[in-house]
Amino acid sequence: MSKTNKLTIGLFGFGVVGEGIYQVLQQTPSLNATIKKVCIKDPLKKRSIPDELLTTDPMLILNDPEINIVVELINHASDAYAIVTTALRKKKAVLSANKAMIAEHLGELLQLQKLYDVPLLYEAAVCGSIPIIRNLEEYYDNDLLQGVCGIVNGSTNYILTKLIDEKMEYKTALLQAQANGFAETDPTLDVKGFDAVNKLTILLLHSYGIITSPLKLLHAGIDRIHAHDALFAASKNWQIKLTAQAKKLSESKVAAFVLPQFVTQESQLFGVRNEYNGVVLQSSFADKQFLYGKGAGRYPTASAVLSDISALRFDYRYEYRKYHRAVTGSVLCNDYFLCLYVSFDAISDIALQDFELIEEFRTHPERSYVVGIISYAKLLRSTWVALPTVSIIVCPDGVIENMEALSLKKKSLELAGVKFKEPVKEAIDLIE
Amino acid sequence: MSKTNKLTIGLFGFGVVGEGIYQVLQQTPSLNATIKKVCIKDPLKKRSIPDELLTTDPMLILNDPEINIVVELINHASDAYAIVTTALRKKKAVLSANKAMIAEHLGELLQLQKLYDVPLLYEAAVCGSIPIIRNLEEYYDNDLLQGVCGIVNGSTNYILTKLIDEKMEYKTALLQAQANGFAETDPTLDVKGFDAVNKLTILLLHSYGIITSPLKLLHAGIDRIHAHDALFAASKNWQIKLTAQAKKLSESKVAAFVLPQFVTQESQLFGVRNEYNGVVLQSSFADKQFLYGKGAGRYPTASAVLSDISALRFDYRYEYRKYHRAVTGSVLCNDYFLCLYVSFDAISDIALQDFELIEEFRTHPERSYVVGIISYAKLLRSTWVALPTVSIIVCPDGVIENMEALSLKKKSLELAGVKFKEPVKEAIDLIE
Repeated sequence: MSKTNKLTIGLFGFGVVGEGIYQVLQQTPSLNATIKKVCIKDPLKKRSIPDELLTTDPMLILNDPEINIVVELINHASDAYAIVTTALRKKKAVLSANKAMIAEHLGELLQLQKLYDVPLLYEAAVCGSIPIIRNLEEYYDNDLLQGVCGIVNGSTNYILTKLIDEKMEYKTALLQAQANGFAETDPTLDVKGFDAVNKLTILLLHSYGIITSPLKLLHAGIDRIHAHDALFAASKNWQIKLTAQAKKLSESKVAAFVLPQFVTQESQLFGVRNEYNGVVLQSSFADKQFLYGKGAGRYPTASAVLSDISALRFDYRYEYRKYHRAVTGSVLCNDYFLCLYVSFDAISDIALQDFELIEEFRTHPERSYVVGIISYAKLLRSTWVALPTVSIIVCPDGVIENMEALSLKKKSLELAGVKFKEPVKEAIDLIE
Repeated sequence: MSKTNKLTIGLFGFGVVGEGIYQVLQQTPSLNATIKKVCIKDPLKKRSIPDELLTTDPMLILNDPEINIVVELINHASDAYAIVTTALRKKKAVLSANKAMIAEHLGELLQLQKLYDVPLLYEAAVCGSIPIIRNLEEYYDNDLLQGVCGIVNGSTNYILTKLIDEKMEYKTALLQAQANGFAETDPTLDVKGFDAVNKLTILLLHSYGIITSPLKLLHAGIDRIHAHDALFAASKNWQIKLTAQAKKLSESKVAAFVLPQFVTQESQLFGVRNEYNGVVLQSSFADKQFLYGKGAGRYPTASAVLSDISALRFDYRYEYRKYHRAVTGSVLCNDYFLCLYVSFDAISDIALQDFELIEEFRTHPERSYVVGIISYAKLLRSTWVALPTVSIIVCPDGVIENMEALSLKKKSLELAGVKFKEPVKEAIDLIE
């Protein structure tokens, strides 16, 4: 029914995923796709493919008119940027898994696709094997999508699972994640939330048509989660997950951030363990939907690239409809509130007066904590939230849309018998 | 980027879902879709829409050249068939949620779409709001899909949840499901597994390119599940779920059936409760993926229809690539084995000699059971499996691919110390 294109691939990078793609393509001859050349950095490293496929010269791929697909799977973001943009200018279809590069250059990459009339697909860049971008593009219409909340980083989820469920030491868990090929070469990209915020940037475009920079989004990772936070979660039968979320607040306003979050047993994210990823989509009429799959590792990532290769046979491309549908343009906003759990070593580490109200406050020589509501705008400006001795975790249903919702929350807490006071006074009372 | 079509809809049926669509369309003006006419059966029934929209004459819609989409949401399968085929012949795009009609006429409906070059979309027919058909069509390539196993009927899952988790009586649970709008007008369609097997028929086309008839597929429902089966499941910390599954056995052979199944805590299906549906997709490289969402009810179904309406604006249609890709054509097969739990009132109700081997056998004056392996072909031919006093539940990982796998299973059971004997002898021993 559809025409099918013969695909001749130039591959950049032959690391864990690149090698996965090569193996996977050899096992799926029906795809009618062949790798003509593989560009690598280090010619001396031993590889599992014939020497004649290898080159260290990118132009051998980029200038080859027979190669109609460039698959970019290298780590280095600025090299990846040069390869991807050059390939698009040379009217080659491009597949990339480089979330950092894509997130940073979204606007330009959209323009290049339009200008040179070639597709750039990057399903593998977000949530590994889960077809989240394709589904957001094709199935979840802008007006209906109320929120996206996901575990988008397999490495940190693996570490959190080992820390919380198996009481493993942080360092051991990190080493194990690296040994299994789930973690980035530089683990700080994962554990400090940089990887997740890059993915959130891409999700924002496909969820709400918003182009922003990862630098503008609040994010924290899992590296400051304290043993006492895990105990607190366990006492409530909650899990701690690093979530990337975007939530529609009103007609055009969207809240977005990457933060650790307490997750209750009712949430589909509760059971997402190890290197798995999961995304909950909330829509007006379908209510909650959930997509789950492996988010990291050689074959899951290769599988996502493979699905993109398969899509190129049928001329698939992202249409970016939500971005182009200017009338209903959504914008990021800061004027909402978050219900946060904050743990810290010393009271001087945090600024209690930043809270709108405090629900709970416990001091302890080893580790103290406060549960309260704080404005997102204030959180963005505060420096204490980034201190190494301070751990911040969003409470379940922690997004409070506006002042009105805050008043309602306050009232319901009062009715429930929570005796909160003005933040500063509360702090003084408790310290006394 | 894409052209968008103005959609003028003729709606057939104004039941729970029809009314949902009407309400939903009024709340999403951005879709640029209007309902011009609604064809109903009973003109005397009170409706929530203006009288001038209503008609009892199908031809007023089918002959209206301005109407370019027919949305068919009626119960009656043969009326639905007449409407859908006439609309396709009149070159109107058609949306339908009528799984029974679609499952029965798949081959013809494919031909009509091709002949008249118009799309027929039916995402709402399978798993309500979950975009399973779209994902199978677009994302899961034939060669990579190892298996599909899903809870595809919200009504029976609701009843099972009430029965097992809340110890509710079967009749009360069924009435509650009906009151909530989850159950079909005729509940036997749900509880006897007819609805699920219709959905499986549709899934087989989009998963493996197989066109078959629901009549050819083995199915049982939940109406024979016994209180003792629930106790047995609870003793192992398992759930009982009605699953529709298709599993690739070798290059071109596929096993498919609808049966109650024991589900362990490790399975993503374990936590699918109430009217929710969930589908686990197993693929070669991505391993397990899971899609979850509401499978029944007014708005979830309306939401799926809405997504199809939205897709029509961009000329989306199913390409049925797996069906057209004749080279790798998959076929249904019967030469495999199932590990089954069978409970019964009296030993005379079942035929123990039909089993290849028996792992466990307990007799009890109230309810007895056997766990054993039986050939699927034999199961299809046996009449005792359909007796009202016999309950059949597939064990976790219950599909055994071939004789070789059966021997391996036998060996591993022996190693685990299970003392099974030849079936008939075993039966005699135990009865003595």
